[in-house]
Amino acid sequence: MRHLLDTRTLAREDAVRILDVAEDMADTQSREVKKLPTLRGRTVVNLFFEDSTRTRISFEAAAKRLSADVINFAAKGSSVSKGESLQDTAQTLQAMGADAVVIRHGASGAPRTLATSGWIEAGVVNAGDGTHEHPTQALLDAFTMRKRRYGAASRGRDLEGYRVAIVGDILHSRVARSNVWLLHTLGAEVTLVAPPTLLPQDLSAWPVVVRYDLDEAIAHGPEALMMLRIQSERMNAAYFPSEREYSRRWGLDPVRLAALPAASIVMHPGPMNRGLEISADAADSPRSTVLEQVKAGVSVRMAVLYLLLAGERTSPSTSATGSGE
Amino acid sequence: MRHLLDTRTLAREDAVRILDVAEDMADTQSREVKKLPTLRGRTVVNLFFEDSTRTRISFEAAAKRLSADVINFAAKGSSVSKGESLQDTAQTLQAMGADAVVIRHGASGAPRTLATSGWIEAGVVNAGDGTHEHPTQALLDAFTMRKRRYGAASRGRDLEGYRVAIVGDILHSRVARSNVWLLHTLGAEVTLVAPPTLLPQDLSAWPVVVRYDLDEAIAHGPEALMMLRIQSERMNAAYFPSEREYSRRWGLDPVRLAALPAASIVMHPGPMNRGLEISADAADSPRSTVLEQVKAGVSVRMAVLYLLLAGERTSPSTSATGSGE
Amino acid sequence: MRHLLDTRTLAREDAVRILDVAEDMADTQSREVKKLPTLRGRTVVNLFFEDSTRTRISFEAAAKRLSADVINFAAKGSSVSKGESLQDTAQTLQAMGADAVVIRHGASGAPRTLATSGWIEAGVVNAGDGTHEHPTQALLDAFTMRKRRYGAASRGRDLEGYRVAIVGDILHSRVARSNVWLLHTLGAEVTLVAPPTLLPQDLSAWPVVVRYDLDEAIAHGPEALMMLRIQSERMNAAYFPSEREYSRRWGLDPVRLAALPAASIVMHPGPMNRGLEISADAADSPRSTVLEQVKAGVSVRMAVLYLLLAGERTSPSTSATGSGE
Repeated sequence: MRHLLDTRTLAREDAVRILDVAEDMADTQSREVKKLPTLRGRTVVNLFFEDSTRTRISFEAAAKRLSADVINFAAKGSSVSKGESLQDTAQTLQAMGADAVVIRHGASGAPRTLATSGWIEAGVVNAGDGTHEHPTQALLDAFTMRKRRYGAASRGRDLEGYRVAIVGDILHSRVARSNVWLLHTLGAEVTLVAPPTLLPQDLSAWPVVVRYDLDEAIAHGPEALMMLRIQSERMNAAYFPSEREYSRRWGLDPVRLAALPAASIVMHPGPMNRGLEISADAADSPRSTVLEQVKAGVSVRMAVLYLLLAGERTSPSTSATGSGE
Repeated sequence: MRHLLDTRTLAREDAVRILDVAEDMADTQSREVKKLPTLRGRTVVNLFFEDSTRTRISFEAAAKRLSADVINFAAKGSSVSKGESLQDTAQTLQAMGADAVVIRHGASGAPRTLATSGWIEAGVVNAGDGTHEHPTQALLDAFTMRKRRYGAASRGRDLEGYRVAIVGDILHSRVARSNVWLLHTLGAEVTLVAPPTLLPQDLSAWPVVVRYDLDEAIAHGPEALMMLRIQSERMNAAYFPSEREYSRRWGLDPVRLAALPAASIVMHPGPMNRGLEISADAADSPRSTVLEQVKAGVSVRMAVLYLLLAGERTSPSTSATGSGE
Repeated sequence: MRHLLDTRTLAREDAVRILDVAEDMADTQSREVKKLPTLRGRTVVNLFFEDSTRTRISFEAAAKRLSADVINFAAKGSSVSKGESLQDTAQTLQAMGADAVVIRHGASGAPRTLATSGWIEAGVVNAGDGTHEHPTQALLDAFTMRKRRYGAASRGRDLEGYRVAIVGDILHSRVARSNVWLLHTLGAEVTLVAPPTLLPQDLSAWPVVVRYDLDEAIAHGPEALMMLRIQSERMNAAYFPSEREYSRRWGLDPVRLAALPAASIVMHPGPMNRGLEISADAADSPRSTVLEQVKAGVSVRMAVLYLLLAGERTSPSTSATGSGE
């Protein structure tokens, strides 16, 4: 694997392989000595054009446990804010010897531009780009679902026939998009649940069922209910529901939690707005996987960095096809 | 030791033990190879909700010299500023595998909440909370006093009968509070010196003598005179002395410095306002321990992290009593 | 070498030695295992009073590849912004055990003050001070020129007779100043090219030729053409050329690029304003050394840190003479 840019073009076998390596990483982490020498001498740059402490420290922890050197490059206050182009920044990081660049960017497609431009040889990991994708989030979600479904027998499995409902602001969510593509590739059945104004206008190409009513979606008994974070600053616009209305109609309150099948899990990418899209009851219930997701995040990111940097590397010129390229 | 939350509940024997381990750490640091492998593979998170570069880098240096991985989490620009609760932040850090969380927070009691909530298993170190406590500051101050008093024969000793005067804005000072409790526990005699408006209203529970006149306090010959930092932004209020008046009446000027007993030491937690609470003469005189305090800070923080992470750990469920819990 | 404060007082043999050690570092970096154990246990503090992500991460990468611990101290949001003096900051870093301090400061001379004050024993590296100097930039530039001139036979060589034209805002440029002194020491012939308002008023002490016309300078066939970055915020002032005029008269456009001798190289310290002082054509042409400069930056900084921290150290008291002190 040369880069991880999206889940839309990630093949099933590559996705399962990442999840399997992540299982190995999780096993290692549960033992006493957590540090692996695998990436000693390699440099991972966290190139963050948007603030995201959670995602940044998850990648930082993952890289450090593999003994890589980590350099944090927050684009604020950098020459980027003086008008330096992505090209110049990328080439600079390459020239400084970056082996992998983890990029968070406000513009959809920036990671792909970085990876396919020829500017750098470093592996590129998309840590969230605009409203496009956030592939490691989808992978950690899939890891969590698979683990809850198959336990110790997870390795090698996909999510064939697994029913997932994703609830909330689908329109602006890269998490939702990455999940839709990955879950579809892994054989899961995805339902989107949202107010009409928080859904993309044309969903014809998306392999999903759409519902507007959360209670109806719950009545169909999803095995995983994924609540997206609401950006309350968006809720001010006239054509969106108010926070109060949103919470009442699309929030996971105790009644809806009780209506879910007993074995269903409740997911959230965090950080949660307790009392808005999810009640404290739901957030802290045993069926909530929020913390398992965070933990899976480090394992999945270790796996991705491992596969990019320590796996078999093909030369840049011959690897322009295949997963995530 | 599971956590270090305050000095008020820190037992004498635990305090002396921290100081003794800090002596060992200081010895190590004075030799050529400074790096100890003790905490290899452990992750220390600096969770700072308030800016404090000095304290942060002191903990960072301490952790790195013990070979721990350090992740800096400045709450500004993080999801915390998007409204994430301390609970969610803590649980996230726990799920990411933090072994110790060093927390600086504007709210008194936040470190205790973090440690006793059940949200995390990681050891918690209070790096300053509101106007409550700053225990490692008091420990490094005690380390410095003990060293000046007993030199190479410090190990195992306390500060029985040692006379300390703490001068300045006691009202808002967590440094003063942590020092009062720790010094009392170690047997020292503490005098507070301040304008009435910069003292707490009810001092009946504090094991201290109170004076309003610095010259009088100096006339009693304290062995250590600890000048607190003045936050000049507070001095604007009508009921506080002006900077000029403060400096004249409670500042350590050359005349007062000369009036101190020859063996007395002058302490300051830094950063100093030269010319306000302390004259440059006093700051740079041989009796000033300002730099010894900074150096002691790294040793004491190494000791605390060592005792939290490498010492005998009791299980969280059975350790709810005892020092600092 | 105790410090690296400027190139003006750097002796030829010391400069060549830094460049030669940088060659060794570059050789190491091109092999598979990049990490050297040389500075294990040493602490390098990046003390940045001005934002400069590029320079900071170059030093950070250099230090980490030598296995040093790196602590980043951005002066914004630190106690420095609360009015702490450079003296107190320096002494604090010293007391915490910093072995080297890499300082970027807005005031010309701050690194020298730091190094010669007696406040610290740590080695001081000037990473840019006001409009004074930026010595590692000049060293990496010289490294790049020497490499292009002599290839694998670079070791031990200087730049005798090499013709360099430096184009742009000389008045405000510490990069230009450091280059002028170092290039002169190494035997190169330096021409400055700029509008009269962007040149210092008195150049009588500078070992340079001055021209106002870029085409004329190019007609003389410089072996290296160094384009400086234009700070467009400065261009608003009435006595400076407009961006448009600057670009037309002093920008390196395709016509001027074609007029350069075939073997000449085009240099830029980055970040580039493509379309202003340099056209995209020129920036990306094979004769552009921009990325080689960045790469050389890590090698040169490794060499400097190595020579400061691992080389023969003379005691502070006896080293007050000599290069860079």
